[in-house]
Amino acid sequence: MPTGADQMIETAVAAGIDVCFTNPGTTEMPLVATLDRTPAIRSILGLFEGVVTGAADGYGRVTDSPALTLLHLGAGYGNGIANLHNARRAHSPIVNLVGDHATWLVDHDPPLASDIAGLATPGSAWVRTVATAAAMGTDLAEAVAVARSAPGQIATLVVPVDCQWDDASGAATTPIAAPVAPSASTDSVGAAARALAAGEHRVLLVGGRALRARGLRAVERIRRHTGCRVYCENFSARVERGPDLPTVRSLPYFPEMALDALADVTHLVTAGTAAPISFFAMPQLDGRPELTPEGCRLLALTSDTDDVEASLEALADELGAPRSVAPDARPAPVVPDAGALTPASVAQAVAALLPEQAIVVEEANTSGINFVMQAPAAAAHWGLQLTGGAIGMGLPLAFGAAIAAPDRRVVALQADGSAMYTLPALWSMAREGTDVTIVLYTNRRYAILQVELMRAGITDPGPIAQSLTDLSHPDIDYCAIAGGMGVDATRATDNEQFVAALERSLATPGPSLVEAIL
Amino acid sequence: MPTGADQMIETAVAAGIDVCFTNPGTTEMPLVATLDRTPAIRSILGLFEGVVTGAADGYGRVTDSPALTLLHLGAGYGNGIANLHNARRAHSPIVNLVGDHATWLVDHDPPLASDIAGLATPGSAWVRTVATAAAMGTDLAEAVAVARSAPGQIATLVVPVDCQWDDASGAATTPIAAPVAPSASTDSVGAAARALAAGEHRVLLVGGRALRARGLRAVERIRRHTGCRVYCENFSARVERGPDLPTVRSLPYFPEMALDALADVTHLVTAGTAAPISFFAMPQLDGRPELTPEGCRLLALTSDTDDVEASLEALADELGAPRSVAPDARPAPVVPDAGALTPASVAQAVAALLPEQAIVVEEANTSGINFVMQAPAAAAHWGLQLTGGAIGMGLPLAFGAAIAAPDRRVVALQADGSAMYTLPALWSMAREGTDVTIVLYTNRRYAILQVELMRAGITDPGPIAQSLTDLSHPDIDYCAIAGGMGVDATRATDNEQFVAALERSLATPGPSLVEAIL
Repeated sequence: MPTGADQMIETAVAAGIDVCFTNPGTTEMPLVATLDRTPAIRSILGLFEGVVTGAADGYGRVTDSPALTLLHLGAGYGNGIANLHNARRAHSPIVNLVGDHATWLVDHDPPLASDIAGLATPGSAWVRTVATAAAMGTDLAEAVAVARSAPGQIATLVVPVDCQWDDASGAATTPIAAPVAPSASTDSVGAAARALAAGEHRVLLVGGRALRARGLRAVERIRRHTGCRVYCENFSARVERGPDLPTVRSLPYFPEMALDALADVTHLVTAGTAAPISFFAMPQLDGRPELTPEGCRLLALTSDTDDVEASLEALADELGAPRSVAPDARPAPVVPDAGALTPASVAQAVAALLPEQAIVVEEANTSGINFVMQAPAAAAHWGLQLTGGAIGMGLPLAFGAAIAAPDRRVVALQADGSAMYTLPALWSMAREGTDVTIVLYTNRRYAILQVELMRAGITDPGPIAQSLTDLSHPDIDYCAIAGGMGVDATRATDNEQFVAALERSLATPGPSLVEAIL
Repeated sequence: MPTGADQMIETAVAAGIDVCFTNPGTTEMPLVATLDRTPAIRSILGLFEGVVTGAADGYGRVTDSPALTLLHLGAGYGNGIANLHNARRAHSPIVNLVGDHATWLVDHDPPLASDIAGLATPGSAWVRTVATAAAMGTDLAEAVAVARSAPGQIATLVVPVDCQWDDASGAATTPIAAPVAPSASTDSVGAAARALAAGEHRVLLVGGRALRARGLRAVERIRRHTGCRVYCENFSARVERGPDLPTVRSLPYFPEMALDALADVTHLVTAGTAAPISFFAMPQLDGRPELTPEGCRLLALTSDTDDVEASLEALADELGAPRSVAPDARPAPVVPDAGALTPASVAQAVAALLPEQAIVVEEANTSGINFVMQAPAAAAHWGLQLTGGAIGMGLPLAFGAAIAAPDRRVVALQADGSAMYTLPALWSMAREGTDVTIVLYTNRRYAILQVELMRAGITDPGPIAQSLTDLSHPDIDYCAIAGGMGVDATRATDNEQFVAALERSLATPGPSLVEAIL
């Protein structure tokens, strides 16, 4: 007799799901028993749910298709919230399955009970609690369709354990197709064309899928034809880069710099992102978070659910921009010579040595801008960035990206403070033998907070503020930790050591870590 | 000019708050600036929010007074949810301060925005978003009073950054007293006395503060006088144990065993805990989670907010039980001799070597019952258990307990799988120099899940189910990881090595880890 768990997993396979990242518990055992008989889905253990959800984000960014996560009750979901927040901001498709107590137990409030749907609502586009075993397949089908709907969404199903083990004979296991994303309306395209046509003092701000090859080429056609300025959002789910692709610089992160950059703008058109506002507030903004000057006209080319790439192509066509644009000349890569290791020299080395079609996961925080500056010199690659600002994304995202693209090298540019959040991702990399090179930037501080303290006027922090932004006392030995998780690690204190270690890591199958002492 | 942050922290100091566990970010910088000028509050950095909230739980269990946590937005709170879940089940007093975007930014939905109050509602007894700088002190005062209200609660304040930095001159900074918990009503005491008087087939089920010295002595008076049976809840916030204290055995964890134990019971009286239900469901329970037989009369001596210890004393007096009871004879401690290291021999050694007034944090899971069995042979100590079932509690709780009781040795009995959840607690122990001995039970599996698979009828799991419950491939080197965090560690593979390493750890100031390879 097929159980509800069987019908759910059969539906998932029929819908094309092939990976489940999980840390299951007692309330998920019937689903584990079904997965045990389902080789079509690769079931992958993470030793902490932040690893599980971050991996699903990485998988979703690379494949545009949802992985399953299988999580244990509200506590397990809770541990996954931070990386689901990043995934939501990245518009990654994910289907979370969260086991719950039996329908006839949960109201008695046993120790592990919590309001799972309540916890899931802030971060999920769609939440449903399965009511019966017969609904397990149909609810899963709907969740997958929601996840695949533009621009990519998080769907969370709460799955009581009795719905998993009860008989579901005869229940449906038919997938549901996601709606196809439409192009922007003719009106929107026409309005955007009129706004940008004059060029000077006009800005096109792009994000999301505009930063993929097709979108970037359309953006470049628009820019060259109109003379408008182009910026991209600060942090993007996936930026495609390469010698034959146009580059787009991002709007400055700090609001006073962004305000300067946009001070003269009369018209700003957005595609794949919202109108620009400050990432954080500061008193000097005086209650006004908009980064555009007063009086600037704002137009959105696309809605959240539109096909951004097709819309940009329609805009380029509407403007009469030539179809093809020759790429700009690129800087030559430079391998840094012997000398002090700095965030800039690390970025130079990574850009110079990066293999073709690498996937670069960028959670280097204050050190990260250096790689973005060096990236035009690198071989063709994708950059996956910290979209939601919830630190601890990098290692799990790199792991999930490597599962999604086993034929590509993943390079994780990882800040030390953020790495502490999700260390068990290293163990999953070792277990699954993923080809991941981790470049760890060890500066032994939350550097961004030291900057923010200064910006808040605290130029001479006392011992308490210092201790709360400092990661030394004691120094953390990341190489020992990585080794403890089964990942080979090398420490580098100068450029020569770093280049040698990076070359070795990139040439060695499986995961390895290169620590850059800055 | 005093800012809102100044008024909030001044109120906290006036209310007797002396510790703040934190991982702050940009939206908490004004509070950090105030804490920097406030030596009366010890501000302590955790490198992950699960460490921060678990430490606050440990601090609350030991002191019965709330620590502050200071967390960064919804993502930071999310990382703390699992250990807040355990704290809620332990009735630990905690005041969470969660920074948020400025009131004039948050509605623009910047990347790090999320519904913080929505996330906090399932796990907090009280949630409020501060509206103005002038309310910072009064809202904090109310949060502390809520946290201190019986039986101990979690209060969460969402604190927009502009309320922190705005002028709050003249605003109130007066603490509010928490209500005093009443004893059970005369009616409840009388009914419980009548139910238990007959003794045979009568059970007193106790939990919460009934397991402290005063409560235990009252329970023992009742038991000896009536002949009733006594059980305690499975997992308790704080069990006080010692040669002059009665012991209470817990109801069996697995429901079929608990049903057996209670099969003959006609009257069950609860004090400090709810009527017994199954921790997890299983199909064999057939939709009935109650562990008492049908027809059994259930009486609650206390409400959630009553003073459990005073109520039990009133009940003992009502029954006319003699005031003092001589303690039972205790087993002599046994140091295990040379031979194979087992969960039982580890527990023997810990019980035999435990220093007076130690605090034992029990997250050994399947290995944990062994210590509970050995505990009567140990010196006087407290046991802090995994109340909410959300794994990853042990190391943070041990850290927080050690901060709360610097003159006592903390011994963390820690399962390997759960340890992976909150490893950065080790670093905080090293930084603060806390006297913590970690006994790590390395069995390289989620043993409870392998048991649950068997109980679900999967006696011969395939490779997928095996891989999802197994922590080997690769083996984790916990000593290397601890060393990487600044904590000395020793590996033991037999009893002789274990006893020597444990003795050394207990005699050495600061944290150290002894890994028991099982």
